[in-house]
Amino acid sequence: MILKGTFLHTPALGKMEVYERAWLVTEGETIVGLYRTLPPRYQGMEVTDWGDCLIIPAFCDLHIHAPQIVNRGIGYDEQLLPWLERYTFPTEARFSQQDFARRVWKAFLNRLWERGTMRFAAFATVHKQAVWQLMELSEASGLRGLVGKVNMDRNAPDSLREDTDASLADTEELICRSRAELKKTGFILTPRFVPSTTSRLMDGLGQLAERYQLPVQSHLSENRSEVKWVAGLHPDIPTYTQVYDTFGLLSKGRTIMAHAIHLTQEETDLLEEKEVTLAHCALSNMNLSSGVMPLRRYLKQGLRCCVASDAAGGNTADMAKTITASVQLSKLNWLSHPEQTPLSLGEAFYLATRGGSAFFGDVGAFLPGFQFDALVLRPSELDALVERTPFERLEQFLYDGDDRDIAARYCAGTLLSRPFGEEER
Amino acid sequence: MILKGTFLHTPALGKMEVYERAWLVTEGETIVGLYRTLPPRYQGMEVTDWGDCLIIPAFCDLHIHAPQIVNRGIGYDEQLLPWLERYTFPTEARFSQQDFARRVWKAFLNRLWERGTMRFAAFATVHKQAVWQLMELSEASGLRGLVGKVNMDRNAPDSLREDTDASLADTEELICRSRAELKKTGFILTPRFVPSTTSRLMDGLGQLAERYQLPVQSHLSENRSEVKWVAGLHPDIPTYTQVYDTFGLLSKGRTIMAHAIHLTQEETDLLEEKEVTLAHCALSNMNLSSGVMPLRRYLKQGLRCCVASDAAGGNTADMAKTITASVQLSKLNWLSHPEQTPLSLGEAFYLATRGGSAFFGDVGAFLPGFQFDALVLRPSELDALVERTPFERLEQFLYDGDDRDIAARYCAGTLLSRPFGEEER
Repeated sequence: MILKGTFLHTPALGKMEVYERAWLVTEGETIVGLYRTLPPRYQGMEVTDWGDCLIIPAFCDLHIHAPQIVNRGIGYDEQLLPWLERYTFPTEARFSQQDFARRVWKAFLNRLWERGTMRFAAFATVHKQAVWQLMELSEASGLRGLVGKVNMDRNAPDSLREDTDASLADTEELICRSRAELKKTGFILTPRFVPSTTSRLMDGLGQLAERYQLPVQSHLSENRSEVKWVAGLHPDIPTYTQVYDTFGLLSKGRTIMAHAIHLTQEETDLLEEKEVTLAHCALSNMNLSSGVMPLRRYLKQGLRCCVASDAAGGNTADMAKTITASVQLSKLNWLSHPEQTPLSLGEAFYLATRGGSAFFGDVGAFLPGFQFDALVLRPSELDALVERTPFERLEQFLYDGDDRDIAARYCAGTLLSRPFGEEER
Repeated sequence: MILKGTFLHTPALGKMEVYERAWLVTEGETIVGLYRTLPPRYQGMEVTDWGDCLIIPAFCDLHIHAPQIVNRGIGYDEQLLPWLERYTFPTEARFSQQDFARRVWKAFLNRLWERGTMRFAAFATVHKQAVWQLMELSEASGLRGLVGKVNMDRNAPDSLREDTDASLADTEELICRSRAELKKTGFILTPRFVPSTTSRLMDGLGQLAERYQLPVQSHLSENRSEVKWVAGLHPDIPTYTQVYDTFGLLSKGRTIMAHAIHLTQEETDLLEEKEVTLAHCALSNMNLSSGVMPLRRYLKQGLRCCVASDAAGGNTADMAKTITASVQLSKLNWLSHPEQTPLSLGEAFYLATRGGSAFFGDVGAFLPGFQFDALVLRPSELDALVERTPFERLEQFLYDGDDRDIAARYCAGTLLSRPFGEEER
């Protein structure tokens, strides 16, 4: 496949490249090259010409709660723990009903597609059937997703609290079934967070992580009350991060921890050693007054970081708005912490594309050998009036655009259409 | 006119009222009453039934730069003063071209309509012709606007710097012409900010304010460098606020000052005495790292406040996103200033409806005798799955909705259609 258009990407943090009116060649899922002049060997071949469109890497969202897509924007006059009780848990309890689950999962996958998120790692719910439904629907959608069955066997409402052995058995069944039947959708171990999972459950999940060489996702140090709670639950383990490590849940190079706000230097050193990816969730952290992740410090230390929506702690699944909120939060934080220089827009864009996508391997930038995930942005109505550089067009799309600006979406080399029809909602 | 639907409004700060499946009766521009049961005298009359829609007061935006609508999202890696030089001023210089101006003004008015802003106070540019064009187009749009010709005769690029006498003469001509010819669109005196206006110009504008009993809008204490600059320009006047007052530009009860971040108690006392409306521009203040207005303190003091988009310092003209950003900023600020309790969503909604609309008189809430400005919101696609209270529907619209959720817009009792056709753009 040969595409023509103007390409913009961020192959490394702090590096942005623009190829105006250039050609990108793919073979199957993979990029062969991006060329300012089309090499002679491709001359005369069919070209998809996107004209004046701007082509950028598609978004990757490494922290999102699929069932909470219905709760976007709801209940932020509360903070984390009461908000979970009042909004999050009652919604998740409804996923024992398969018809309800199927309709929400379709809305969730449609929404990701619509907003340009082609890869994701999602928390589903505790329900084995519902998780399997989401995995099958995700496979059908063409998106590339990691889906986790939530594990929780303590400090949860009766409707969601699991028997420890059943939780482990259901998890293992989903691991095996998804490995046997699915190609584009992976399973990710998903203890909700320390307060929801007993030591025995965490230990069992750690053994599954090792046995099946699985990725892991969870929450870490989101809120000060939560940190104190964890310290009280595990008085024998010095820090929150070490609780996960103790139970084998910092699977090296394969772990995502969301929030990671209130950490000691010892903890960040451990996260660095374990090559954990930290998902910074700016919108959620603002909505729930959780605190501000010292992202600049983590980036300087060389930790793996990305930005993520955390819908519905974040009020939208839209990664463009997640990017701009990350920049805005970093600027506000800079006013009171002058040593934490703010994110540039290019840096935040990197963290939402290559930064997160690295969890899936070689994807998230237009480099040879990388999988081709992209969004094609049409020129805005006002571009005819004021000439814009490709970067300014990116700025305008991220800060005040929406899905109506996206003309096409590619995931792993394939043009994707809307996964599910309107009548399916 | 009789409307049926579910109504939600905030008649006072901290007060929210919901009328489910109720009736609102208007006569001309004005609300007669909002009734849980339709009074017998209206029985049998024609009713516009909005079914399951939620009807809320329309937005009012008291600080927006009309020419900058083309610059939404652009250039925020800069701070205020270099950003003005690089993006704002070059764009405004183009408004000497009437064809360009006409197209941008139409896009501006269309955008306000689209996003549900029915009343506004806008900075135009220095150009007499272009300002008059905007006033005429605004009149045709059906929106209710105050439009200001920008005055600037110092510290401006050659292309925008005015001769002092010409600036005053052009201003007076626009005042008289708009009073003679327009009904829905008013003129508002608009010295850009102290650094752009000589003492002689400010003095002349102060005289016009007095002679014609005119409203005034400007910028105040947005950024620390600017505050220092003003102190250097007027070493004989103790504070920035007093500079405006010295020249008669704090027209009592008729003045809007945007930003108002870095103020002394003396200044806020003066602003209170002069009944100045302070426009809090959260998105802009984050984008340009300007600082955080101590809004809670001002509200406690009883100052008149509203939230405003400040596009294109703000990255969108969308007041829904301005509201949610104001809440998010207040929560972040609360983390480092625990005495400044955060805004609730209802408070921020009040500040974008009744709070700002008060500048136009009795409008912005569904009270008898008030002008009827409203947005009709359709149920979202997911409402069929999860039952929502009217307040939760408002939350979801503000936090993750867009213009596609707005089924109809009323301004001063009239259903408004899109002001200008697509072909006009």
